[in-house]
Amino acid sequence: MGKLLIVGTVAFDAIETPFGKTDKILGGAATYIGLAASNFNVSSAIVSVVGDDMPANYLNLLSAKNIDISGLEIVKGGKTFYWKGKYHNDLNVRDTLATELNVLADFNPKVPESFKDADVVMLGNLHPNIQLSVINQMTERPKLIVLDTMNFWMDHSLPELLNVIQHIDVLTINDEEARQLTGEYSLVKAATKIEAMGPKYVVIKKGEHGALLFHKNKVFFAPALPLEEVFDPTGAGDTFAGGFSGYLASTRNISFENMKNAVIQGSNLASFCVEKFGTERMVTLNKEEVNKRLLQFKELSQFDIELE
Amino acid sequence: MGKLLIVGTVAFDAIETPFGKTDKILGGAATYIGLAASNFNVSSAIVSVVGDDMPANYLNLLSAKNIDISGLEIVKGGKTFYWKGKYHNDLNVRDTLATELNVLADFNPKVPESFKDADVVMLGNLHPNIQLSVINQMTERPKLIVLDTMNFWMDHSLPELLNVIQHIDVLTINDEEARQLTGEYSLVKAATKIEAMGPKYVVIKKGEHGALLFHKNKVFFAPALPLEEVFDPTGAGDTFAGGFSGYLASTRNISFENMKNAVIQGSNLASFCVEKFGTERMVTLNKEEVNKRLLQFKELSQFDIELE
Repeated sequence: MGKLLIVGTVAFDAIETPFGKTDKILGGAATYIGLAASNFNVSSAIVSVVGDDMPANYLNLLSAKNIDISGLEIVKGGKTFYWKGKYHNDLNVRDTLATELNVLADFNPKVPESFKDADVVMLGNLHPNIQLSVINQMTERPKLIVLDTMNFWMDHSLPELLNVIQHIDVLTINDEEARQLTGEYSLVKAATKIEAMGPKYVVIKKGEHGALLFHKNKVFFAPALPLEEVFDPTGAGDTFAGGFSGYLASTRNISFENMKNAVIQGSNLASFCVEKFGTERMVTLNKEEVNKRLLQFKELSQFDIELE
Repeated sequence: MGKLLIVGTVAFDAIETPFGKTDKILGGAATYIGLAASNFNVSSAIVSVVGDDMPANYLNLLSAKNIDISGLEIVKGGKTFYWKGKYHNDLNVRDTLATELNVLADFNPKVPESFKDADVVMLGNLHPNIQLSVINQMTERPKLIVLDTMNFWMDHSLPELLNVIQHIDVLTINDEEARQLTGEYSLVKAATKIEAMGPKYVVIKKGEHGALLFHKNKVFFAPALPLEEVFDPTGAGDTFAGGFSGYLASTRNISFENMKNAVIQGSNLASFCVEKFGTERMVTLNKEEVNKRLLQFKELSQFDIELE
C-alpha cells in the first residue's frame, strides 16, 4: 500500500448555487483531496490547521475514511479558515463573498514522522512557501510531488510560486491559470513553457471540458462526464487532484501510461463531487458506484477504428 | 462503395484572422464537406449553385477529388454567394463583415438522377426549405440523413427548421445553438429534447472542446486534437460533418459503435482544416497524413484501467 501525504486547507465553506445555499459546511482542498484518495488502497495523511470551532464530527468524517489526521493542528481559541462564494447560472463563474484566513495566516505545517517517506506528496492549493516547507521536511525524495495552485498566488506571490514549482513533478492548474502563468493562449504552448519551469508533467483542468495531461511531446485528454445537472462545482478540482494522486500512490506506478489512468480516475471522482453540495456526495460514495461510472468513461471515450 | 449526396453552399470567403487575411477564396459548406468526404472510399456529389464568376480552377479542385458536380448549377451572369468575416484573438469569436446571398437567393436544388438513391445525404447549412426539397427528391429513403444548421435559421426560419428536422436522422449543431434551440443549458438535457424533435442522433460540436454524440441514453465524446496553433477555423464544422458523413457512407454501417468512429474521423479531418487558410490544407491532404493523425487521436484518448 502506497503512502500519500496531503497538504491543504481544511475549512468552512458557505456556498450558494442556482440550486440552493448552505450555511458553513466542511470544505477545503485537503478535505476534498483526502476524501477522493480514500477510494483507493492507499495510506494517507493530511497536514493542515483548523481552529477549535471545527466540530469533531467533521474531523471524524476524515478519520472514518482511514485518513491520518495526526498532522492536522487544532489551534485553541483559533478560528478555522472560512470561504463564502456564490455561483452564477453559468457555474464556471463564481463570486467570492468572504475569505477569512484566520488560523491559516500563521500556519506552520508539520509533517508526521511516519509520512516523511511518503511515495506521493499532494500539495493542495496554499501559499507556495507552505508547500515548499512540506517538501523540505521529507526525509527522502518522494516518487512524485504534485502541486495544485491558483491565480491568487500568481497575482500575489509569483516569485515564491515559481520557486516551489522548480521542485515538483506535476503541476495541476486550470486553463485560464495556465494562460496567465505563461502568457500563451494555446494550451499546448502553455504546457511546454510550464515544463521548462520545472514540472515534468502538466495537467490542465478545463472543468466541464475535461482535462489534459502533457509530458514532453505526449498528450492525453480525459473528458468530463456529460451530466444532466451540475449541482455544486465546489471541490471538483481538488477531488480531481485527490483521485489523480491517490490512484498513483496506490499503484506506485508513475509511468505516463498509468498517469492516463490517474487522470481518468480523477475525472471520474470529480463527476460525483459536483452532484451534491460540498462533500456530501463524496462521503457516501462507494467502490461499486466508482467502478460503474468508470465503465461509463470507457463507453464515453473508447473507439476502435481500423486504419485502411 | 457507398454514395454520398452533399447539399450546401459553394462560395467565396474573405477571411481575416490574427495571423493574416485573404481576398476572395473558395469556401462554402458543400466545398468543405466534399473535400473532407473525399478522404474515404465514397462516391459523392454536390448539389449547389454558383455564379459564372466562379473560376473554373476552383471547380476543378472538386472534380479532381472525384466529386460529381453535375448537380452544381452555374447561373449565367449570376454572382456567387460571398461571405466576409474577421476572427478575434479568441478564434471562437468572429464578426461577419459581409454576406451577399446573390445566386443563393433563388436556389432551387436539383438532385442528379444517379444520386437519388444515395446511401447518405449530408444537408449542409442552408435554408431549411432547400434542405427539405432535397429530401423530397430522393426516390428511396436514404440509410441516413444528416443535417447541419446554425443559429441564423433558428432566429429567422424556426418553423421551417423544426419541420425539416422531423425528417432527418442526425442533427449536427454547436453547443450554443443546441442551447438556443432547446432552452436547456445542460447539453445532456438539450440532446434529449432534440431527439424528441425527430433526429435519433444528435452531434453537439464544441470547437476546440471536442464533440459529443448522443443517442438515447448513450453518449460518446471525441476530443479535438490540442494544437499549437489554430490558423483559421473557417470550415472546421463543415469538415467535421464531411468526415462524419463520408466515413458512414463509405462503411455503410450506421451502428452507434461505427458512429463513434465517424465522430473521430470528423474531428481528425477538422484538425487539419484549421492549420491553413480556407481549403488550402484540405486540398493537399493525403491518406498517410490522415492515418498518422488518427493514431495520435488514439494516443490522446485511449486508456486501459483494470477495475479492482
